This record gives sequence, C-alpha cells and structure tokens, in this order.
Amino acid sequence: MALPIEKQVPGWLTGEGEHPDVVLSSRVRLARNIKGFRYGSRSVRDEELQVRDEVLGALEHEKLLDTMTRINIEGLLAYECNYMIEEHLISKDLLINKPAACVVVGSGSRVSMMINEEDHLRIQSIASGFDLRRCWSEAEKLESLIGGNLEYDFHPKFGFLSSCPTNTGTGLRASVLIHLPGLVLTKEIQKVLRGITKIGLTFRGLYGEGSEVLGNFFQISNQITIGKSEKELIDHLSRITSQIIQHEQNARSVLFKDAGHYIQDKVWRAYGILERARTISGDEVMNLLSAVRLGVSMKLIKGLSVSTINRILIYSQDAHLDVAAGKQLKPMERDINRATVIRSCFEDNNQLL
Amino acid sequence: MALPIEKQVPGWLTGEGEHPDVVLSSRVRLARNIKGFRYGSRSVRDEELQVRDEVLGALEHEKLLDTMTRINIEGLLAYECNYMIEEHLISKDLLINKPAACVVVGSGSRVSMMINEEDHLRIQSIASGFDLRRCWSEAEKLESLIGGNLEYDFHPKFGFLSSCPTNTGTGLRASVLIHLPGLVLTKEIQKVLRGITKIGLTFRGLYGEGSEVLGNFFQISNQITIGKSEKELIDHLSRITSQIIQHEQNARSVLFKDAGHYIQDKVWRAYGILERARTISGDEVMNLLSAVRLGVSMKLIKGLSVSTINRILIYSQDAHLDVAAGKQLKPMERDINRATVIRSCFEDNNQLL
Repeated sequence: MALPIEKQVPGWLTGEGEHPDVVLSSRVRLARNIKGFRYGSRSVRDEELQVRDEVLGALEHEKLLDTMTRINIEGLLAYECNYMIEEHLISKDLLINKPAACVVVGSGSRVSMMINEEDHLRIQSIASGFDLRRCWSEAEKLESLIGGNLEYDFHPKFGFLSSCPTNTGTGLRASVLIHLPGLVLTKEIQKVLRGITKIGLTFRGLYGEGSEVLGNFFQISNQITIGKSEKELIDHLSRITSQIIQHEQNARSVLFKDAGHYIQDKVWRAYGILERARTISGDEVMNLLSAVRLGVSMKLIKGLSVSTINRILIYSQDAHLDVAAGKQLKPMERDINRATVIRSCFEDNNQLL
Repeated sequence: MALPIEKQVPGWLTGEGEHPDVVLSSRVRLARNIKGFRYGSRSVRDEELQVRDEVLGALEHEKLLDTMTRINIEGLLAYECNYMIEEHLISKDLLINKPAACVVVGSGSRVSMMINEEDHLRIQSIASGFDLRRCWSEAEKLESLIGGNLEYDFHPKFGFLSSCPTNTGTGLRASVLIHLPGLVLTKEIQKVLRGITKIGLTFRGLYGEGSEVLGNFFQISNQITIGKSEKELIDHLSRITSQIIQHEQNARSVLFKDAGHYIQDKVWRAYGILERARTISGDEVMNLLSAVRLGVSMKLIKGLSVSTINRILIYSQDAHLDVAAGKQLKPMERDINRATVIRSCFEDNNQLL
C-alpha cells in the first residue's frame, strides 16, 4: 500500500503554532485549471490523463517529486481512501473521477495537491494552530513553481477560472478548524455563527461541507473568492478568527466562574471514560475529547499535552483503525480497537511526563 | 457529639470472611422484651426509662459497658441519626420513641443493641462476609449475659414474645447483604427472588424494609421466626445463601463468556468515572460501585481491594458526609464532597499497593 502512514501525527495536528488549544489547524487551498484542457462536468478521460502528466511533469522539473509522495486513487481500497479523507489529504470529490485522480503529498503532509478533483489542481497547505499567513505563503510558493511550467486558465476580468463559479477569482479558500466548547456551552454559538455568515464567511463540521458538527469543532472559511485580493481574504479571516478566539476565551471564563464544579466534573468524567473504556464509538470520542481539550486548555487537567489529544482525535477515527488493522473492521471490532488506541495514547503521554 | 466515629470502616465492611466479594455482610438480630413492662404500642414513657435502666444495669453488672459505647438518641442531630442508620447501628423505628431510646455499640460495631425500639431490646451481631454462625453465636452470647440479670417475656408455647407477632418465637432475624449483579444482568434475578419467597425467606434493599434495591445489593433474611429452632433458621438461610452465591457465580461466568467486552467496558467506565468525577449523587455511586465490585470480583480490575470498595460504599453516604463536614450539607455541596471522598479512598488504596 502506498499510503503515507507516518508514526507522527500529520503536521497540522502537532499542537504547535498560535492558540493550538482553540485553533487546531489552519488551511489554505488554491483551485487551478490548466489552459487547453476541459474541466468540471465537461472533462474527458484522455485530457485528465494529460493534465495529470502535465502537473507531475512540472513537479518533476522543479525537483519536487523527490520529497513528495504520489498516490493514485485507483490503487486504493475503500478504507484507504477514507484514511486519506480523515488525514484531510483528499476530498470525497476526488474519489468520483478515479482513473486519473491522484494526490501528491509533501513530507509531514504540510503541503499536498489533488489532481483531477473538481478542478484540475487543488493545492493545499495546512498548519497546526492559528497560522493562515504561513499556509498562504506555502501554497502560493507551490502554485508559482508549478505555474512556471504550465499555463493556468486565467481570465483578465474574472481571475482564475474554476469548474464552479464560487471558486473563480482567487481560487482561494482559507479556513481554520476551531474548537468552541465555551461558546456552545454558554449558548452564544448561534449568535457568532450568524454573525460570520453576514460578513462573507461560512462554517462547517470537521470534515467539510455537509459534515456534522461533532465535539464542538467548527471549520470557518471564506465564502467569497472573487473581488478581493488573496491578502485581503486571509487578513479578513485572520481578524475574525482572532475575535472568535477572544469570544471563546471570555465564554470559558464565564463558565468557569458560574459553573466551575459542573465544568470540572464534565471535564474529568470525560477524561476518566476515555482512559478506561474498553469499547467506544467515534462520536462519543469526539464529544469526550472536546471536554478533555477544554480541561487541558483551562489548566484543569495537567500533564496532558494538546498533541496527545490531537493524536487521539486522528488515530481513533474509523479508517485509521482499519489501516492500523490492515483490513476493514466490523463496527464492534472497531469500537474495541478504538478504545485500545486511546488508552495507548494516554500511556505514551504519561511516559513522556 | 457521642457518635462512635472510627477511622476504620465498621467491622461488617472490612472485606474479611467468606465470599466477601459477593456477600458484603451477615447479620443476626434478636428481639426481646422484659417481663413486667408493657411494649409496642402499649408502652409508656416511665416504663421505657425503667427498661433502659434495667438493660444498662445488666450490661454494667456484666462489665460490658467498659468496652461499649452508649448513645442516647435524644442527644443526636438529625444527620447524626442518619449516620447511625447508614452504619446499620439503628433503625428508623428507634427514632420515633426518642426520650428513652438509646443504642449501645461494641468495639468495631460488631455487636450492638437498641433499647426501646419496637421491642425493648434488639440485640445485633454483624460480620463481614458470609458468616451467619459467628453472628448467631455472638448475639446469643450477649443475649444470655443480659438474660442472666433480668427476665425476658417468654411464653412456653409461643416462645419469646414481641410487639409484632412476626417476631414472636425465636425473635431471630438472620440476614445476608449480598451483591447480585450477575443475576441482575442475566435477568435471572426475578426467578431467584420468587424462589426464596416460596421457602420462608424474604428480600429487601440495602437499608431494610421499604428501601429501594440500589447497586444490585439485596438483603435476604428469614421471614418466619416461629416453629423452628434458631439453629434451623440459621442453617436454612446459610444453605440457601450458598446456593445463591453459586447461581451468581454461574451467571458471572456466562456473562463473561457471552458479553466479555460489554462487561469489561461497563466495569472500567464505572471505575473511570468514580476515579475522576468532581460531583456525584449517592445513587450513581451505588450503581458504579456495583460494576466496580463485579470487576474486582472477576479479577478484571487488579490492585483494588474489596475493603476500599466497602469504604467508598459507607463513606460516600449522605449522613457520613454530613458528619465528616460537621454540619448538614446542602445537596450540591454533598455531591462535591462525595466525589472528593471517593477519590481519596482510591488514593489511599493506591498508596497501599
């Protein structure tokens, strides 16, 4: 199997960067299409193969393929595809277009690109914590290197063209994956979410469009990609994210002041169950992990690192458990393995103390 | 305050004796009335005072008061009375008749007697684990010593007379406090309970008549006290208890075989919550403690002693928390203190490892 399975958590979950206890990760992706080839619903297989070869050729010319891993989607089993989705390396849309679809992943999964997804090229840079500017600079660097070898489809009035008009313009979507238990528990969250949708931003669950909000994790991103520069889009999301972090921290202070015992109990019970359970569902893990993350952030729980919480978050997911077992597990087996993996993450954490 | 508060758990919860993981404690009590004084609903205050003095005089004459503690109910606060009930030293009925009601407690609370409860005298012997014969021998010894100094109301045909006909005859009630999670989880319990009621036995919750069955703890005792000798009554309850222990152990084996993961998970989650909670109700403790006791008994949890579980059982009760705090706590305070006491019992246990 050609999956880039690493002993380390992916680079976007190391618990480094700014405010890693609130902002899990920051991400920037750029949508690009290559001039001379059809895309979206009009694309044809022959041209998809040519697009793939053009992009890979550009990467080779820039000597980038030496440090990056290329994975063809066609060669993957279903649970391996899901593993890549859980790692935030590919989207479900990449699975539709199989024969010429592939993903190229840089070391630590910090940068990656999907070839023949909805657009010819989706370049992604992802970082731990709150660091949109770094993501933008790394995505832009890769985009330029490739762009030196081929011509992106660019319209002087509309900007970069894309298969869906919502991506036309900069082709940029910036997002933060943010943990907002304080705003959820104080019931302020709806007000905040309504607020951001009025200023050109949008929110989703952990796994993007259509995914459920689990464990109080929200993905907040720009809705508009046209009519503003990349810098303006990044700056705007950064500014609003800073404000949301401040709201969240205020909410946590209020909670702790007004309902200290309730919060402490909620946090510690969640910790106790995660430490001890012998079988556990993915949804329950997300909810318990949310409470534990809050407890670590509020310094109620000491000696547990954000990176351990992030390890649990990623390794306890269905397809990660399947990949670790080397087969598609039955739901009951998976829940047992999930509990085992969580306990071993706690043990690893305690050995590092 | 004159409560016999001991650093140790009461003698009936040390976790010693036969099958302490299934049978928490064994108990024998004898009901006696003193000739020449009215009792039950016909009793009058003057005579109650005389009865008390007669019994205390007998204890003094036998030099028993040196090693026993006498506590007048009249001098106790409400929560102190409840503490005594939780220690199984007095019944609610003793609280009705206050002015001349008292209790005399031997060291370790192994033997005790209530004066001016429903009957003039209720002598009790209680032991950890399954040991009815020892209880009977100790209760009978105390009964004889007192009986050497005064005359019990005895009818040649009916035996010892009592205020309620159901206690007339031997005046003996033997009981075991038994933990039956296996029979409850396999849904065999109703059959067992129906069975015992057909053979002259009865069952109750942890705190006797009318109390709810919590945490899968049952008190099983003889219903009939007349027409059989004390030895026959004790032997019968002992024999049936041995059978119930066997049924319970079979049920546990079946459970472990058929639902090992479910049971392990239930046991360990209960342990995790008890270890970590910051506020917890008494009922929740009983239910979690039931699972943990099962886990220790089935050797799933190692390094946790039955005596620690018993300490938690007794010290986490409402009036024990009130007495420890020196005041009647508010429910919310009590739930917080309960969680703290439980954690300190676990810490004490771990320090002994």
